[in-house]
Amino acid sequence: MSAGFKETRTVDQVLNEAIKYVRHRPGVIEVPISEALYRYLAEDVVARFDVPGFNRSAVDGYAVRSIDTFGASPTNPITLRIIGFMAVGDEPGKFALNPGEAVEISTGAALPINADAVVMYEDTRRSGDYVEVLRPVPPMGNVSRRGEDVRAGEVMFRRGMRLLPWDLGVLASMGVYRVRVYSLRVAIISTGNELVEVTDVPQEGPPPGRVINSSRFVIEGLVKSLGFDPVYLGIVGDDIDRIAKTVEDAIKGYDAVITTGGISVGRVDYTIKAVMKLNPEYVNHGLSIRPGRPNSIAVVNGKPVFMLSGFPVAAATGFDVLVRPILLHMVGGEDEPRPVVKGVLTRRVSTPVNTRSFVRVRVYLGKDGGVYVEPLALTGSGILSTLVRGNGILVVPENREGFDEGDEVEVTLTRPIYRENA
Amino acid sequence: MSAGFKETRTVDQVLNEAIKYVRHRPGVIEVPISEALYRYLAEDVVARFDVPGFNRSAVDGYAVRSIDTFGASPTNPITLRIIGFMAVGDEPGKFALNPGEAVEISTGAALPINADAVVMYEDTRRSGDYVEVLRPVPPMGNVSRRGEDVRAGEVMFRRGMRLLPWDLGVLASMGVYRVRVYSLRVAIISTGNELVEVTDVPQEGPPPGRVINSSRFVIEGLVKSLGFDPVYLGIVGDDIDRIAKTVEDAIKGYDAVITTGGISVGRVDYTIKAVMKLNPEYVNHGLSIRPGRPNSIAVVNGKPVFMLSGFPVAAATGFDVLVRPILLHMVGGEDEPRPVVKGVLTRRVSTPVNTRSFVRVRVYLGKDGGVYVEPLALTGSGILSTLVRGNGILVVPENREGFDEGDEVEVTLTRPIYRENA
Repeated sequence: MSAGFKETRTVDQVLNEAIKYVRHRPGVIEVPISEALYRYLAEDVVARFDVPGFNRSAVDGYAVRSIDTFGASPTNPITLRIIGFMAVGDEPGKFALNPGEAVEISTGAALPINADAVVMYEDTRRSGDYVEVLRPVPPMGNVSRRGEDVRAGEVMFRRGMRLLPWDLGVLASMGVYRVRVYSLRVAIISTGNELVEVTDVPQEGPPPGRVINSSRFVIEGLVKSLGFDPVYLGIVGDDIDRIAKTVEDAIKGYDAVITTGGISVGRVDYTIKAVMKLNPEYVNHGLSIRPGRPNSIAVVNGKPVFMLSGFPVAAATGFDVLVRPILLHMVGGEDEPRPVVKGVLTRRVSTPVNTRSFVRVRVYLGKDGGVYVEPLALTGSGILSTLVRGNGILVVPENREGFDEGDEVEVTLTRPIYRENA
Repeated sequence: MSAGFKETRTVDQVLNEAIKYVRHRPGVIEVPISEALYRYLAEDVVARFDVPGFNRSAVDGYAVRSIDTFGASPTNPITLRIIGFMAVGDEPGKFALNPGEAVEISTGAALPINADAVVMYEDTRRSGDYVEVLRPVPPMGNVSRRGEDVRAGEVMFRRGMRLLPWDLGVLASMGVYRVRVYSLRVAIISTGNELVEVTDVPQEGPPPGRVINSSRFVIEGLVKSLGFDPVYLGIVGDDIDRIAKTVEDAIKGYDAVITTGGISVGRVDYTIKAVMKLNPEYVNHGLSIRPGRPNSIAVVNGKPVFMLSGFPVAAATGFDVLVRPILLHMVGGEDEPRPVVKGVLTRRVSTPVNTRSFVRVRVYLGKDGGVYVEPLALTGSGILSTLVRGNGILVVPENREGFDEGDEVEVTLTRPIYRENA
C-alpha cells in the first residue's frame, strides 16, 4: 500500500520536525470582549485594580463592629440599634457605626464605615429598630475582602489562553473592555478537475464523474471551531503551475494555507509538485495514518502549507492530527480536552500495523445499560455518511493491529451517545 | 439558609415542571451552510440524489471487466491491453472496455463503460501498453458503488441536530447549499442599582459600592456557545415597575429572556416581584444548588424567563442546570457530551445535604503521573477568579455531603489539565 510514498512517517515525527520551521506568528487585532469568545489572547492581562474594590457583605444580615458581638449567645444575646439599611450599590459612607449600632445589609453591599463583620439573619432576632445578636462574629466574618477575588497587579490571563464564556466576565470585572487577540487567517484552496461548487449543481446532482466540493466546508468549519478565520480561495484545476501560483499568493496574504486534493501518488500529485516549486524549507509527503495517508505538509517562508486529501473524511483526519496542533502552536494555545467514553466493541476491528487508524464508530447505550461501540463499515476514505451516522472515533495506535470483539475500548465522542439499542 | 424561599426545589423537579409550560418555538431562518456551523436544524434533510453519483474506483490501479481476471495468479498472470487513463473528473463515457482491455484509473475516478472492478497496482505488473493481472478481482471489487454513501430519498439529517464541521461537508455533497435552522434569540437584562457598564469605568476602577456588570458577558458567551443569539438590552435599576416593563417588552420581542440580579430574599427580590406582575403560567423561586440557590424561572406566554443570580459564578451555574436544557428543548436539541476526567481529591470537600453543589477545582498531573483534583477556596458565589484559575467542576450530588481527601472523583473539564505540579 505504501508504494509511491518515499516513506510514511509517524504523526509525531512529522509534527516535531515541521513545528521547528513554522516561525511565522499571526497578526494581532484588538476586539471588544463581546467579540473575543473562543479567540486566543495575544497578551498577558494584568489587573489594574482590586476586585472587589471594597469590603462587602457575603451574606444577608447586619453589619456590625465585631467587638460589639463578643460574648453573645442565644441565652445571652447582645442588643444593637439598627440605624439603617445598606443596599447593593450604596456607597460605604452612607452610614458610620458608633459602638452598639448595626446596619441591615444585603449580600454584595459595601460595609458601612466602622463595620468589620456581618452577622447572618439566622444568628439574630429582630425587634423593631433593634436586633439581638445570638452568636459572636470574628473580625471580617462573612465579609468578602477588597482584592480577595483579583489583586491589582496580578497577571490574571496569559498569552495563548483561549477565552471561554466566563473569561469574558472576568475581563469585564477587571475593567477590560477591549483585548488583543490573534487573528489567524487560513487560506483554503480546493484542487481537482472533478470538483464543482455546490452552488453550481443542478437539482438532480452533478454530472457523472464530477464531484461536489464538500471538503471546503469541512475545513472551513474545522478552522472556525478552533477560533481561527478561514478564507476560501476557490477551486483550482489539476495544473501544477496554476496551483503553485495560487498557493504562492496565499502564502503572501495569509498566516497558513490548506489545500485539498492532488497529493496521491503518481499521476495525481499535482499539489505536492506545485508546492515543491516554491522552495519549501520543509516538506513531508504522507503520514502513517488511516484514513489520510496522503496528507502532507510543507513550510514556506515560515508559514505552514497543509496539503490534505481530496476525500473529506481523510482531510478531516489530517486536520485533526496535523493542522490543529500546528495552528494552536502558532498562537501559543493548547488543545481543549475532549469527551471520551469507554464501551464494549461489538465487532472486531482490523487495522494495518505501524499506522494510527481512526475508525468511525456508533456508540450506544444497550438494553442492559452497558455502553457499546459499533464500528461503521466503510470503503476507503470517501464515506462521508459515517461522519453523520457516527458519534465517535476509535483511535487504534501504531503498535496495534486492531481490537477484538468484546474488547473494552476508549472512544472520543463527537455527538451524544445514542439511547436506542443497536 | 433557606429562610425566605418558600421551598428550594431540586433541579430535576423544576426542569420537569417548567418544560411543560414552554410551548413557544423559536423562529426559523434559512442560511447558507457556511453560516450554519453549530446551529440546530429546523427541518429534516433528505437526499435528492445518490452519493457517489456513479460507480468509482476506491483504489489506484486498472479498471477491468472482472470476468477477464478469473483464474489469474502470480504464476499464471492474465495480460490485458491498456487503452487509456481515467482521471478523477473524467466522465464514464471516455472509454468503453472490450474483452481483454483495461484502463488505468485513479482513486475516485468514474469506472469506464463495461468495467465492473478495479485491480490494485499491487496486484499487477506493467509492461508498456500491457498489464499483467496477478490476482482475480470479483465483480464490484475495489469499487465504491453509486449510492453507497448516501441514497436518494434517505433522511440524512433530523430536525434538532446540531451542525458540526463535517456535517456541512455532507450537506454540500448532497447538493444542499442553504438550510433552515433555528434562530433562538435570547434577551439579556441586567438589574441592579450597583451595576456600571465596563465601558463607563474609570482607569482606577468603579466607585466604592459600585460593581461592573460582568454577568452580562458571561451569559452572552454561554448563549453563543450553544449556537443561539444573545441580545443585550442593558441595565435596569432596582425598580419593580421598570423591570416588569422591560421584561414584558423582551418577552414580546424575543424567544427567551434572561435577567440577572434581584432574586435574593427580602428587600432585593425586585426581579421576581416584577415577573410575578406579568401573570406567569409557571414560576419557581430558588433551586437546591450551590452556588446559585436564588436562580429562578418563570414561563410567560409560553416563553421562559430565567432569573439568574447577580453573581457571575452563581449565574453561570444556573445557566448550566436550568437555561441550557430548556433552550435545547426549544430547538429539539441534545446536550453535547462533555470531557470528564477522574482524579484524586487533595482536600476534603464539604457541601450541604439535599443540594447539588458545583465546586470549582484545579485538575493537575502530579509528579507520580497521577491526576489530582484540588478544590479552589472561595467565599460565597462572588469569586470570579476561580473561573479562570480553575479548569474543572466537581459536582456533588444531592444525596452526598461532600467527598473526602483521597477519594477518586469525576470532574468535568473546562480547560486542559495542568501539567505542572500542585
